[in-house]
This record gives sequence, structure tokens and C-alpha cells, in this order.
Amino acid sequence: MHTTLLSVTTGNQPAVHDLTPECRRFLRGEAEAADGVLQVFVPHATAGLALIELGSGSEADLLATLAELLPADRRWRHSHGSRGHGRSHVMPALVAPYATVPVIGGELALGTWQSIALIDLNIDNRTREVRLSFLSG
Amino acid sequence: MHTTLLSVTTGNQPAVHDLTPECRRFLRGEAEAADGVLQVFVPHATAGLALIELGSGSEADLLATLAELLPADRRWRHSHGSRGHGRSHVMPALVAPYATVPVIGGELALGTWQSIALIDLNIDNRTREVRLSFLSG
Amino acid sequence: MHTTLLSVTTGNQPAVHDLTPECRRFLRGEAEAADGVLQVFVPHATAGLALIELGSGSEADLLATLAELLPADRRWRHSHGSRGHGRSHVMPALVAPYATVPVIGGELALGTWQSIALIDLNIDNRTREVRLSFLSG
Repeated sequence: MHTTLLSVTTGNQPAVHDLTPECRRFLRGEAEAADGVLQVFVPHATAGLALIELGSGSEADLLATLAELLPADRRWRHSHGSRGHGRSHVMPALVAPYATVPVIGGELALGTWQSIALIDLNIDNRTREVRLSFLSG
Repeated sequence: MHTTLLSVTTGNQPAVHDLTPECRRFLRGEAEAADGVLQVFVPHATAGLALIELGSGSEADLLATLAELLPADRRWRHSHGSRGHGRSHVMPALVAPYATVPVIGGELALGTWQSIALIDLNIDNRTREVRLSFLSG
Repeated sequence: MHTTLLSVTTGNQPAVHDLTPECRRFLRGEAEAADGVLQVFVPHATAGLALIELGSGSEADLLATLAELLPADRRWRHSHGSRGHGRSHVMPALVAPYATVPVIGGELALGTWQSIALIDLNIDNRTREVRLSFLSG
């Protein structure tokens, strides 16, 4: 299996970070025009992955939805770190830290409007790792 | 990798569309009684996949839950198309457009009550594509 | 493909059950220090999987969040079984019954704080099956 571990900077605000260019770059180097599946994985307990359209407002919509479903208040049992940190620990149950995307002829078989995004509500971690793995079929 | 792209009609109402028969048909043709994993993928930014029981009311329950968590109102930044269209762009972060299901001896290893369903709140798109890929183990 | 079906006891209360030790044991026996992907699958229509931190309060936080998003009341169409049973049938659309985790050198490539947990709100089923499958790369 071809696999690599990336480091991405998500900053100190809730973030939606586009991973699609990195995924394409990885496949260009590793997939050799083969068919298979790209598995994207975030080895963190306070981050997730979403396949959404970027650049048309859905980033703000998603963060607003998560702020409503998982408020940054004092309700959380898991309560070290910044106010509302516990919400970031529940998020991966709803926005999972893994995703799989078909690869055809070495290219991501995404839809026109789909991107692969890292979702990070955790304002205490500025840097995140992402593992990309290519399983050829 | 064996892979195919299906076209399914979801109509102009929020829809829960059963893909299980198509998945079974695909495996019958391609999996040749092998073990592996079926990857189901929707190449759209406003649709998702859910593995739920169908035919006992959960379709309506799921659509009602999504109507509550992601209301079809004017709150969304992403706001072209029909009223509430922006909710459809957030949905794939919660109801992901990929799923993986084990295949044993060429058959889906689903539980008795599980089906594979396409979830489509988007009333502006009547037709959707679904990619099925079989990774043999 | 190496695959096995486990039986786990989740009891008669909403449960977050750690599957990580079983996953490690399975890989020790089957993965032979290879690279690949572990696919975890719950063949039930009322259970899901979450990759979260365990042992710091997030179990209670997740169950409280699910109690709010999917209340155990009489709103559900799917309404046989215990009060609120219908919520358990919607949960897998949000907390999916599949997960994939990279395996490097026969070991789960999880982050330090990540565990693989079975989420079961269904108080009518005390025992659950879980399928583990290893796809080598």
C-alpha cells in the first residue's frame, strides 16, 4: 500500500481546510494511473473529514451548523482546554475522521463540486496530521 | 478494481432511495464469489448514503430529523437554487457520500435489517449518479 | 481477505463500547505486519461506530448529544419496541455502521487519543456482532 503522512496548518479558529490538492498530488506520485480507493484518515480525536463543495459559502454554513448542534459552552464533561473543547471530542462521531474516494486511472473520481476537507473546531491545535493511503484494486 | 457508474432517479422531493438491489446485481456480475469490500460513492455535493432499515418508517424519521437539524429556511450562505438549498450542501458532512460494506463469498455481508440508501434532500436534481467499486481482498 | 465476526455485549443501557483491543488482537493474528486498511462493520440497523477518545468523559457527552439530536420520545414513525426505539434506527445515518482505519506494519495507525467504539442506543439488544476485515494493500 502506498501511504504518506501530511502535516497541515489549520490555525487557531474553527477551520475547513481543503485537502483535495494534496490528495491529487499524492495520487500523481503513487497511483501510477491505476484504479483503486484513496483512504483519507485524520489521526486526531478532535478533527473530521467532509466531502463538500468549497468556495460557495458551505464552509460557514457547516461551522454554523456544528456550532448549533455542538455548542461551544460549558455542558461538556470532557472539559480541559479552551471553553467548549468537549464539543470537538464529540464531533468525530458525526463528522468521521476517515473517508474513502474511488480512484479511476490514477484520478480522484469526485463529482464536479466535491472537495475533501479537514474539519477542525479545535482552536488549541494549529497543526494536524493527515494520512493518505492508496489501495489499488 | 471492478467499478461501475449507475444513474438513479430520485425525483423532486427529499428522497431515501434503496440502492441494495443494484449493489447485489453489481456484485453478482463482478465479485465472482470473492471476498472483499464494496465501496459505494455518490459523486455529488448534495447527496449522501445511509445504511438503515427501509420499509418500517425510518425513511420518514430520517427526513424529519434532517429537516430539524438542517432546516429548509433562509439561514444558509450557500443560497442559489430552491429555498433551503444550502442545507443540502451541509448534509454530506453528516451523512457522508461514501460507504464501505464487507463482501463475503460474493454477497453483501449486511445485517438482516440493513439496506444501502441514497439520501437526497435536493429537490432541484432529479437524477443522481452512484459509483460502485469492488475491492477484492 | 482476512475477516472475522465478533460478538460483543453492550447491555441494556445506551452504550459506548471500546472495540480497539479486539481490533488489535485481530490484526496481530491476521495482518502479519503488513500494510493495509482495517474495515470495521456492524451488521445491525440500530448501531454505529465512532472513532473518539474514551475514558475522559466523551462517552457521556456523545450519548447526551445523541439524546438531544434524536430524543427518546414518541415522535418516531418506526415505533415498535421500547419507547424511543425509532431514534436508534435513524442513528446509523449520522453515526455510520462502518469505519476504515489504516494499518501500517500490522498496527492500527490511530492517533494517540483515538479509540474505535461501538455506539448502541438500543436497550432491547444486549448482544451485537461486529465484523473486522483486513484488506492488505
